[in-house]
Amino acid sequence: MAKLGWKYALCLSSSIFFNILFLSFLLRPQEPRLTWSREAAREAEAIASLSCSGHGRAYLDGLVSQGKPVCLCHTCYEGPDCSDFSPGCPADVDSGDPLFLEPYWMRHAASSAILVAGYHRMSYRYNDSTISTELQKQILQLHAVVGNANTTGRFMVFGTGSTQLLYAAVNALSRDASPSPASVVTAFPFYSVYETQTNLFNSLNSKWQGDSAQWKNVSNPSTNVIEFVTSPNNPDCKLREPVLSGPNVKTVHDHAYYWPHYTAIPAPANEDLMIFTISKITGHAGSRFGWALIKDERVYERMITYVTLNSIGVSHDTQLRALKLLKAIQKDGGKELFEFGYKTIRERWEKLSKRVSASKRFSVPKLAPRYCTYFQKITGPSPAYAWLKCENEEDKDCYAVLKAAGIIGRAGAVFGADSRYVRLSLLKSQDDFDLLMQRIESLVSEEDGPRSI
Amino acid sequence: MAKLGWKYALCLSSSIFFNILFLSFLLRPQEPRLTWSREAAREAEAIASLSCSGHGRAYLDGLVSQGKPVCLCHTCYEGPDCSDFSPGCPADVDSGDPLFLEPYWMRHAASSAILVAGYHRMSYRYNDSTISTELQKQILQLHAVVGNANTTGRFMVFGTGSTQLLYAAVNALSRDASPSPASVVTAFPFYSVYETQTNLFNSLNSKWQGDSAQWKNVSNPSTNVIEFVTSPNNPDCKLREPVLSGPNVKTVHDHAYYWPHYTAIPAPANEDLMIFTISKITGHAGSRFGWALIKDERVYERMITYVTLNSIGVSHDTQLRALKLLKAIQKDGGKELFEFGYKTIRERWEKLSKRVSASKRFSVPKLAPRYCTYFQKITGPSPAYAWLKCENEEDKDCYAVLKAAGIIGRAGAVFGADSRYVRLSLLKSQDDFDLLMQRIESLVSEEDGPRSI
Repeated sequence: MAKLGWKYALCLSSSIFFNILFLSFLLRPQEPRLTWSREAAREAEAIASLSCSGHGRAYLDGLVSQGKPVCLCHTCYEGPDCSDFSPGCPADVDSGDPLFLEPYWMRHAASSAILVAGYHRMSYRYNDSTISTELQKQILQLHAVVGNANTTGRFMVFGTGSTQLLYAAVNALSRDASPSPASVVTAFPFYSVYETQTNLFNSLNSKWQGDSAQWKNVSNPSTNVIEFVTSPNNPDCKLREPVLSGPNVKTVHDHAYYWPHYTAIPAPANEDLMIFTISKITGHAGSRFGWALIKDERVYERMITYVTLNSIGVSHDTQLRALKLLKAIQKDGGKELFEFGYKTIRERWEKLSKRVSASKRFSVPKLAPRYCTYFQKITGPSPAYAWLKCENEEDKDCYAVLKAAGIIGRAGAVFGADSRYVRLSLLKSQDDFDLLMQRIESLVSEEDGPRSI
Repeated sequence: MAKLGWKYALCLSSSIFFNILFLSFLLRPQEPRLTWSREAAREAEAIASLSCSGHGRAYLDGLVSQGKPVCLCHTCYEGPDCSDFSPGCPADVDSGDPLFLEPYWMRHAASSAILVAGYHRMSYRYNDSTISTELQKQILQLHAVVGNANTTGRFMVFGTGSTQLLYAAVNALSRDASPSPASVVTAFPFYSVYETQTNLFNSLNSKWQGDSAQWKNVSNPSTNVIEFVTSPNNPDCKLREPVLSGPNVKTVHDHAYYWPHYTAIPAPANEDLMIFTISKITGHAGSRFGWALIKDERVYERMITYVTLNSIGVSHDTQLRALKLLKAIQKDGGKELFEFGYKTIRERWEKLSKRVSASKRFSVPKLAPRYCTYFQKITGPSPAYAWLKCENEEDKDCYAVLKAAGIIGRAGAVFGADSRYVRLSLLKSQDDFDLLMQRIESLVSEEDGPRSI
């Protein structure tokens, strides 16, 4: 019986031990349970869990087939999970779509996610304007950390992409141009939107007049001149200074690419009217967000009026997203984003320029290393685009030459340049770049063949 | 000993019972644990849990003070939790901010929340355009359910608010106006943006020419005419037909308010160019989203070009939000939203018009009940605005009269009307409307006093 008692005691004490153990598990401090936000979070995670073979992506607002989200495949990939490569498919490097930054955001999913409530910011306005002051703070902080712009004594205007602000600037700077319209010019080769926008609006106040160079020797032009200065330039990625100066010249500095991924930052830009875009910083081209820093209060007021009458400011959804993204990258002063961005483009440029330098038929610009105040060292070139030239006499239409070889670039003529030039984007996804390199490889390898015959 | 054994057995069996109970709790099927999305969801719920006394709201992108989100108070409320009413504060019913719909979204928090991943839709484009096809589907479905527009054989363009599309239409319809610019006109009183936009862009192709009525007897105008037809009209909320017709007349139908909250829907609108906005449907004015339905393919192509060159389409964040909101309201065919919207505005109008009808000093338009094909019954008027008139000879500046009484409306002159008129918005928050009624009450009660002296 004593033996039985001892067994009982052992059983009971084990059972009590497990009681305590289970109870402590049940009573462990738990995170508060999510309520109304849970379904949205669950849905987003379910979509994100589709890998699409790494050659595509499923989106919350994507196609749904038979109750299941459908993969949106990268160019040249197809099939339900994007695993089928289409061998004849051309390398499309036309657009400046900054998808090379997508992997950064995949890695920072937690710090960059936002949950938007249905009743978030329904009003036309924030407190007293159409601009989020928190976002404004983040932008000022970003410029301070990167050291690419002097923001002191500047007003800030937000735009639906820098695209909206480019013409807002033309509109503001030419508002009292009279009797003859202000001449809108830029140094060639140039980003074509300056021309197409000015022509689209066909204003009495401004007229597209082409290359700045034509105006260089006009010491005192009778009309006002608005010069766009794109630095680094699109398409040739060189740092640029204004060509024109004088009392009748207003300058708009488009600094879309003045960030450490694409160029060494020699010093903070310090101009009267500077335009930036999130597209080329975080890669969120689809969010349509840009800003301008403006010294002259009257120009600022006019640009605010323009954006207000054009679209009643910038979407609050966009402003919320931009705020979260800029906060996310600034957790380490932008270090990881800019290093990743720089490294990616630098490697792409090295590969491409090395392969092209082995060719006599093609060339790309020689770009020099330069001291970057952000990285605090000399950095090699990392241009957003390869401004490729067809050197052979017979290759007058370089775009067609490349197209025949399965490469879709953007023709030099689009930038006001000779048709011997083509812009190749280095900003797209790794799949796009890899395919570009394959095609460049074949093209350059062929070269010795026919030539040696 | 037997007694002891019995006790032991009881203890042991109870203990085992609890073990099984606890274990079954521990092993109960649990929802999959959220990972990267959890923090965003938690943050949104924490912000939403701030009540701000019902007279304000805390937002994800709002001010943070000492690590805590700050309440953004409704007009006339202040203090850390917005509980302090400022007695002297005027009733501000100037803007058409559709905040009356906020309570609907508070009630539908779960079905309207979205979790946006950091890498969501970074590209400039969706599959093959800048337009989300899923959103397009939702819009077509909404028109079909509400029966307010015939979408058959129409092309669709998205805009950064209908604001962007208004001028996109002018631009598209006047592109080949020559030699003289197209005349942009509308019937007075009118929504002032048609005038201010046309003047802002100051195009060679179009010129603001004021009231349609002036052109009525010009049987064949030598220039092209673009007539804006706002139906229901802003500010007087009447259903409108074009004033002008003929081969040189193009008509742009602004149907911002052609939804069951604001008007009976007698029949689907069936015009060549119709413009809509989400602002007045779901109340998300801050999201900046509108669309146009267009019959003529060339006009459609031109409007697409306009929006592309103006802002490279509409923010993908906005499109995602619009998709979710339209999906949420369509769960019951829009029934709850439209009924809530209609009921709210109807009650406000009844209160206001009843009080004003007791006055000889002020009047509002008489609006007739009408059969609504959506509600399938005759509905009483529910106008977005009260188009108030000061009837007394001496009250020439009605805006000033109201302002002196603590009511900020929008002056008739802004709409091209006599200064005896003022537009009062019925769309703002309940706090704003309640305050407006208080002030109207005092104003009307005072009336008999001085008059009887």
